[in-house]
Amino acid sequence: MKRLKVQKGDNVYEGIEIPSVDEKYVVLKLDNGYNIGFKRDKIKIEIIEEFEEKSKKIEKKEAKYRKELRDVSIIGTGGTIASKIDYTTGAVYPAFSPKELEEMVPEIFDIANIYPREVLQILSENMNVERWKKVGNAIVEEISKGRSIVIAHGTDTMHYTASFLSFTLKNLSVPVVLTGSQRSSDRPSSDSRMNLFCSVKFATTEYNKVVVCMHGTMEDTFCYVHKGVKVRKNHTSRRDAFQSINTKPAAKVYHDGKIEFFGDLPQKYEEKPYFDDKIEEKIFLLKVFPNISHEILDFLIDRKYRGIVLEGTGLGHTPSLLYDSIKRGIEKGITFCMTSQCINGRVNMNVYHTGRKLIELGVIPCEDMLSEVCYTKMMHVLGHAKEYDEIRKSMRTNIAGEITEDTVVV
Amino acid sequence: MKRLKVQKGDNVYEGIEIPSVDEKYVVLKLDNGYNIGFKRDKIKIEIIEEFEEKSKKIEKKEAKYRKELRDVSIIGTGGTIASKIDYTTGAVYPAFSPKELEEMVPEIFDIANIYPREVLQILSENMNVERWKKVGNAIVEEISKGRSIVIAHGTDTMHYTASFLSFTLKNLSVPVVLTGSQRSSDRPSSDSRMNLFCSVKFATTEYNKVVVCMHGTMEDTFCYVHKGVKVRKNHTSRRDAFQSINTKPAAKVYHDGKIEFFGDLPQKYEEKPYFDDKIEEKIFLLKVFPNISHEILDFLIDRKYRGIVLEGTGLGHTPSLLYDSIKRGIEKGITFCMTSQCINGRVNMNVYHTGRKLIELGVIPCEDMLSEVCYTKMMHVLGHAKEYDEIRKSMRTNIAGEITEDTVVV
Repeated sequence: MKRLKVQKGDNVYEGIEIPSVDEKYVVLKLDNGYNIGFKRDKIKIEIIEEFEEKSKKIEKKEAKYRKELRDVSIIGTGGTIASKIDYTTGAVYPAFSPKELEEMVPEIFDIANIYPREVLQILSENMNVERWKKVGNAIVEEISKGRSIVIAHGTDTMHYTASFLSFTLKNLSVPVVLTGSQRSSDRPSSDSRMNLFCSVKFATTEYNKVVVCMHGTMEDTFCYVHKGVKVRKNHTSRRDAFQSINTKPAAKVYHDGKIEFFGDLPQKYEEKPYFDDKIEEKIFLLKVFPNISHEILDFLIDRKYRGIVLEGTGLGHTPSLLYDSIKRGIEKGITFCMTSQCINGRVNMNVYHTGRKLIELGVIPCEDMLSEVCYTKMMHVLGHAKEYDEIRKSMRTNIAGEITEDTVVV
Repeated sequence: MKRLKVQKGDNVYEGIEIPSVDEKYVVLKLDNGYNIGFKRDKIKIEIIEEFEEKSKKIEKKEAKYRKELRDVSIIGTGGTIASKIDYTTGAVYPAFSPKELEEMVPEIFDIANIYPREVLQILSENMNVERWKKVGNAIVEEISKGRSIVIAHGTDTMHYTASFLSFTLKNLSVPVVLTGSQRSSDRPSSDSRMNLFCSVKFATTEYNKVVVCMHGTMEDTFCYVHKGVKVRKNHTSRRDAFQSINTKPAAKVYHDGKIEFFGDLPQKYEEKPYFDDKIEEKIFLLKVFPNISHEILDFLIDRKYRGIVLEGTGLGHTPSLLYDSIKRGIEKGITFCMTSQCINGRVNMNVYHTGRKLIELGVIPCEDMLSEVCYTKMMHVLGHAKEYDEIRKSMRTNIAGEITEDTVVV
């Protein structure tokens, strides 16, 4: 293998050359872990060092069934955790099947009987309601076979999926653990291995809610298990990008498999688990900003959106020039819910007269719910309730842990 | 004064009674600092304690001019820092004039010659371009009189205003310090006093950029001075809600006036300061989410928006079903800029083929810029540049500290 210095215009890049499927390109793995591709005819190349590649010996385990272990289904949906490099462009492509994931993380066969199942093969920015339904139905099928669930998911929208599943998977009897990776598994800095190991480990517990299990720090020391309705991706690239908001994580899983819970186990259900597929799709998540025009609301109203999450400023405000359109929308039966773009903290629309005005108009304050969570909750709630009072009550009632306790000011 | 227990339905509230302008209402100051109003005929009242109000002695300073001190203009725009309680509704109303602020914080007269000037009297969710222009012009007028600037501003949109001013105030010779308050000044837990003191103190330094000066912790120990282009309101109610993103604060101002800088002072300008009012107002800040429809982009294109900030997922992605509309928009000369809803970290659209596709379409990756900052930067840049190449270059070039250094991947 070669370490190269590549000069393109005024910029100089240094890294290990990785195989390119196209002779016209040179691909470098930079020291920061990212890959970058160059057209050969546009660059100057200097070889800094040549060395032997260390052979990677992967111990392949026999997937023999062991009665004393829990059965865990690993549902593949795509994303970085199931991806490898496209050497032409230096970009990452979804490519590993769950079968291939088994080879990557042999340790998981010591702690559970693993059942891989590929449901989707997408990058998670393309997640949508139709695909959520596929995943939801697959989960219930797997649970009916006595299996716990791990879902390999792209990180872009993992928190949206986690909250959607939190509202729509009912009477869960086992953990449903979403996990992903911020760096693809062929990079030295990949977090796939520990995330998958900790997720499978957590899937063998008596917990029975939807959670996200991802690196807790930048080191490979432990993962946090976040409640699916209280988690957000808060960094574009760091391994510890996922954070619990307005609450503590549910648990910590150490790299050696030790688990520490931060609260009581959730209530158990007697009834059979099912996926509730009654979903209202016409919901818009609108971030409010200075100088926004009311015409966007008028457009959404005219396009017959059934619900709008207002991601307001501060304690839950919008410019007052939106009030007339909000009023018109509510008169037409559209539900307006308020969250805050501050992310942390709680909406309180009683402090300022502008907030009280919005409440008078019928805007529903959504306490300390994240905007993303409010969005998937509205999909679920409006799939069932049709009347304002019923919708308001459901939105302001804790369904899946999305509202944490506090004095609610009347 | 009386401490009351109020029962309304099943809920019980306890707090100090505060005067009500309307006999029909009882208003309590709760122990958490919030006020709450009740209709007298809907509640049961019990008096827990009666006591004498402590008289507040405010030492009124003579505002005598002292040649050895710097001149600081305090520009009032409204917001909680300049507000008091509406006793009928328990809501907070903007009400104090900057003159009244003087009485609140007598210490500031020891450290500067204070010139109060009321420019706006709004809650900051109603900030818009027209009002930003008023503030910008007032600032330049005050600077031309040899004064440094402190701006009392509502916290909801203070970070939007700070970034707008960072791009439009050119050749600054003095600090322009935005400050506000998360709790109104008649509350025991108010942060107005220390925020204003630290802001005036910082306004007397040799710094010459737009900054936000707010509580650094929940205690009254110090304020952070955040660069106006790298700060965000990250909590609905905490005193330390404002945080520097992707960089360190510019400085720390302790409650006793001691200042600690975290970097070099910015470059000095020879030219006269001015407010650049060439602004393109038709910019939309669009948060992307799963299941979003392309029709929103089609609408913005048809309504002749000139620029759209795509607040994408992860490293800077959108669902691929938006690509056709983005392509059509770019063909019509509309600028699309990409930021990340992760808030922390940097857009990198070279890692996945979907990101590269967006770059090919002409979407401009905006590095580690906050969405809110990208929005005000686009207003400024599109007010000047009209051609794609020029716009792209300006958006990707550091104008006011909004892009921090890192290897930019080609």
